[in-house]
Amino acid sequence: MAMNVVVIGAVAVGSKAACRFKRLRQDATVTLIDSDEYISYGGCGIPYYISGDVSEESQLRSTSFHMVRDERFFKVDKGVDAMTGVTALGIDRENKRVRIRKKDGAEEALPYDKLVLGTGTRAKKLGIPGVELENVYRVGNLHDAIRIKEMIVSGEAERAVVIGGGFIGLEMAEALSDMWEIETSVVEFCDQIMPGFVGQDFARMAQHQMEENDITFYLSESVEAIEGTDKVERVKTNKRTLNADLVIMAVGIEPNTDLARQAGLEISPAGFLVVNDHMQTTDPDIYAGGDCVQITNLITGQPGFFPLGSMANREGRVIGTNLAGGDARFPGGVGSFVVKVFDGALCGAGLTVETARKAGFDAASVQVAQFDRAHFYPEKEVIYLELVFDKSTRQVLGIQGYGGVDSGMFARVNAVATVLQYKPGVDVISNLELAYSPPFASAMDVINALGNAAENFIEGRFRPMEPSEFDQCWLDEEKSGCLFLDCRASADGKPFEEKFPGIWKSIPHDELCERMDEVPRDKKLILLCNTGVRSYEAQINLAAEGIEDTVSVSPGIAGLKECGIKF
Amino acid sequence: MAMNVVVIGAVAVGSKAACRFKRLRQDATVTLIDSDEYISYGGCGIPYYISGDVSEESQLRSTSFHMVRDERFFKVDKGVDAMTGVTALGIDRENKRVRIRKKDGAEEALPYDKLVLGTGTRAKKLGIPGVELENVYRVGNLHDAIRIKEMIVSGEAERAVVIGGGFIGLEMAEALSDMWEIETSVVEFCDQIMPGFVGQDFARMAQHQMEENDITFYLSESVEAIEGTDKVERVKTNKRTLNADLVIMAVGIEPNTDLARQAGLEISPAGFLVVNDHMQTTDPDIYAGGDCVQITNLITGQPGFFPLGSMANREGRVIGTNLAGGDARFPGGVGSFVVKVFDGALCGAGLTVETARKAGFDAASVQVAQFDRAHFYPEKEVIYLELVFDKSTRQVLGIQGYGGVDSGMFARVNAVATVLQYKPGVDVISNLELAYSPPFASAMDVINALGNAAENFIEGRFRPMEPSEFDQCWLDEEKSGCLFLDCRASADGKPFEEKFPGIWKSIPHDELCERMDEVPRDKKLILLCNTGVRSYEAQINLAAEGIEDTVSVSPGIAGLKECGIKF
Repeated sequence: MAMNVVVIGAVAVGSKAACRFKRLRQDATVTLIDSDEYISYGGCGIPYYISGDVSEESQLRSTSFHMVRDERFFKVDKGVDAMTGVTALGIDRENKRVRIRKKDGAEEALPYDKLVLGTGTRAKKLGIPGVELENVYRVGNLHDAIRIKEMIVSGEAERAVVIGGGFIGLEMAEALSDMWEIETSVVEFCDQIMPGFVGQDFARMAQHQMEENDITFYLSESVEAIEGTDKVERVKTNKRTLNADLVIMAVGIEPNTDLARQAGLEISPAGFLVVNDHMQTTDPDIYAGGDCVQITNLITGQPGFFPLGSMANREGRVIGTNLAGGDARFPGGVGSFVVKVFDGALCGAGLTVETARKAGFDAASVQVAQFDRAHFYPEKEVIYLELVFDKSTRQVLGIQGYGGVDSGMFARVNAVATVLQYKPGVDVISNLELAYSPPFASAMDVINALGNAAENFIEGRFRPMEPSEFDQCWLDEEKSGCLFLDCRASADGKPFEEKFPGIWKSIPHDELCERMDEVPRDKKLILLCNTGVRSYEAQINLAAEGIEDTVSVSPGIAGLKECGIKF
Repeated sequence: MAMNVVVIGAVAVGSKAACRFKRLRQDATVTLIDSDEYISYGGCGIPYYISGDVSEESQLRSTSFHMVRDERFFKVDKGVDAMTGVTALGIDRENKRVRIRKKDGAEEALPYDKLVLGTGTRAKKLGIPGVELENVYRVGNLHDAIRIKEMIVSGEAERAVVIGGGFIGLEMAEALSDMWEIETSVVEFCDQIMPGFVGQDFARMAQHQMEENDITFYLSESVEAIEGTDKVERVKTNKRTLNADLVIMAVGIEPNTDLARQAGLEISPAGFLVVNDHMQTTDPDIYAGGDCVQITNLITGQPGFFPLGSMANREGRVIGTNLAGGDARFPGGVGSFVVKVFDGALCGAGLTVETARKAGFDAASVQVAQFDRAHFYPEKEVIYLELVFDKSTRQVLGIQGYGGVDSGMFARVNAVATVLQYKPGVDVISNLELAYSPPFASAMDVINALGNAAENFIEGRFRPMEPSEFDQCWLDEEKSGCLFLDCRASADGKPFEEKFPGIWKSIPHDELCERMDEVPRDKKLILLCNTGVRSYEAQINLAAEGIEDTVSVSPGIAGLKECGIKF
């Protein structure tokens, strides 16, 4: 008899699993249900719909050949019976039935041979007064998106507060400010944006980029109340009150696992559905994937949570294959991500120094700044990379990057992201073989320079200072008794020496060995050049003369400026 | 006593080895000699100097901070004694001395503790009449480049013939034509450009791009003579005579290993210096790297030859580390490459189907065409990827790509290039975790679609037709008794049906199951849509109805057009 598969949830993983399975088993019956009327949409595209880059919400629900993925599409194009507005009420595992309620309120029981759960997540709501006021939104689904856009288009929004400086928060802030010129603030509870995804320095680069585009940030602040009469008027934090006629709550998501929990499937302490590498729940006839499950973090070996449409799609395909009797595996993930912030982008994979230390690694990181292409090629830009590694084992644990949206940064981070699953040492990054020609890369490419820097750090030759440490030192009135030794050409260094007498000294690197006697031996030296190459060479030269109390500002003055540090 | 290192050859590997070693051993003496006056230059940048993208040759010899890498630079910045115009005459391994002749003709013997050979290659010269005529050039070094540019700038060149359709040939052809508007032809002995690096289809895409930019190609032609009185006037091939006042011979390179050979170091049958993974020759006190050595091809396990400045730089660093007593290894390469052709680029790594078969693999490949970013995001373009794999073991053997110069193609090829060393199966490509958000990638990214296509091919579900096969079939008057079944929407398919009655039929994919009785069962069906997604679905639907004699044009009509195939 033909197999009968029911899929609950028709956004990413569910739709993909249904279609893949149906392609493999054209004779099977596949029923795809969702409580929403909008299905199979690109949720990650919502900020671009809000911004107007995507003009109609239907584009988020369309194929590349402009066909809307509605019930008709699934039927005639995919042979899948999609039913929208259908709520799953419960799973009877013993009799293999899903109890549902249809649009018209009628209840019935759908029998299944195999069941797939793609129930996703819901956007978290803060437990503070005022969250129910009008014009306070979350960005959980397409309905939220449509309501937000309607409000903006009506011209009602002049001042917006975005709560949360993670992916959705940043993307929404850009959307509101860039296209609609809404005065936008972001309030973030942590002391940096994108906490857990990048370190302080790259967070600061992205923040600076957004500030240059008129977005205001309030870090280390918590929202205590949203105030107003009917509609929102103000947001109260623990430090200030912000006027607002639009509030976006982007404070995280939580998995929808009620159905699975009631059915007795295993749920992890963190609240996610537990699946094996075949994407099977603890009931072998029930598969699950997407944002409601946990998968293995391939770096820590511990459970991980990677709520991304891309992950869900790949998991869906694995489920589809296995439903048809295949043996496809989804080994886990490393948590690759990228987020556009105006003309810049933050990208990464694996662990940050902070998350790596929490996971028990002896973690450190190095940063490099370098052109993405041959420095003599006319089109190029400086990009910033940070490599996280274990100092004892030399294993690479993560990479983060900041650079222009069209720069080579994205290619570099991905080239490392894809090898992280093999637990490479830093020497692998030194020798990583990117395709080279001057319009695309450097002969000693920035990615190799990053591996080299990590090795030099581990060996103790390279003692870097990162922008955040520099900033602390620079803000200190006494400058902690340091001397800032500028290794750039005189034309660059001299003006700084004149501006900061006594604390800033210009000795171009090519004069350093001759002028060694001008270098004080009783002060900590902070070595600087434009991108960290000459200051590292200076560190080596000084060490050979017995001057070891030095640090080299690793992404150079270019990196300090990118962080918005002012001299 | 301080160590004494001599390095012969001061372009890429030699300079890098010298500087890295000196950084590790500030007390050592390092002598870097080269017969040329120009050292440490970016040879891969020569075409961009010719084109004018790089205005001065000195930029190719400069650091990112605009310092020319001459003898003074090596001395004051690097602590390395560079000597130009010095020819190495012989190596006395027993007494550890290099016999040299200086600029002034004086000969002397340089003692060494360790020696490094970075003697590189020379550009091949064809063994035909006329190669010594004026204005017949090779592109072997900076002197050649300067002479070519002088000639062009003087306005003497109106018609150029480039012999050889490999990297240098294509880059030089673009340089001559694009900036200087010289009427340029490329003559290639093989039946495609970039033989051995990409398959026929992507070669054709790149060729088409160049033809659209007024470059003429003569494939499968051999040059028999270069003719003229003093200066070149004509190039005679086995098929025609081309007028030319400038000829570029870009017919390959051969290693400079005379010195090593005379010293009794092992040279491979193919003529390259043999080194171990420490980059040591058969004399443990003599290291070698760069274009004159062979390294392991990590895919075949056989000796490989990857003459790239990037490879040489990384090898140089390994040599520098080992000279200082370190234990750095250079395991080998996978042969990543990229070449810009006007607004397009060809990129790849590993083997092509052809080179894989020659290496004994049971090789096949699949092609996909897909947007590089989310299809609903406004900025995006279709890119083309080809995955080469072993049908029996499923091991991925290579990847090639064609796409816009600023497209996401480069990132995709690199993401696979870097994992090739781990001998991944095609399932690894299906699950490859690139960073995702709509401005950068698709939820089911093109790279994953590529892995999926390979799996579907191996399982026998996906039976593709490539552009070159399509073209053969289409050029056949009788069309081999095939029916071209167009699965696009009617608006796209109907005009083709009307233009090609009897052989072209339009049945949009979403009508296929209802109109199955219109599909003939006695003809081979060639299924088409725009990028191959719907035609693959149609192939599945038809197979379920017992219609198995079908092929799906894998990169779609978009791919056919990119190849320049006209309907």
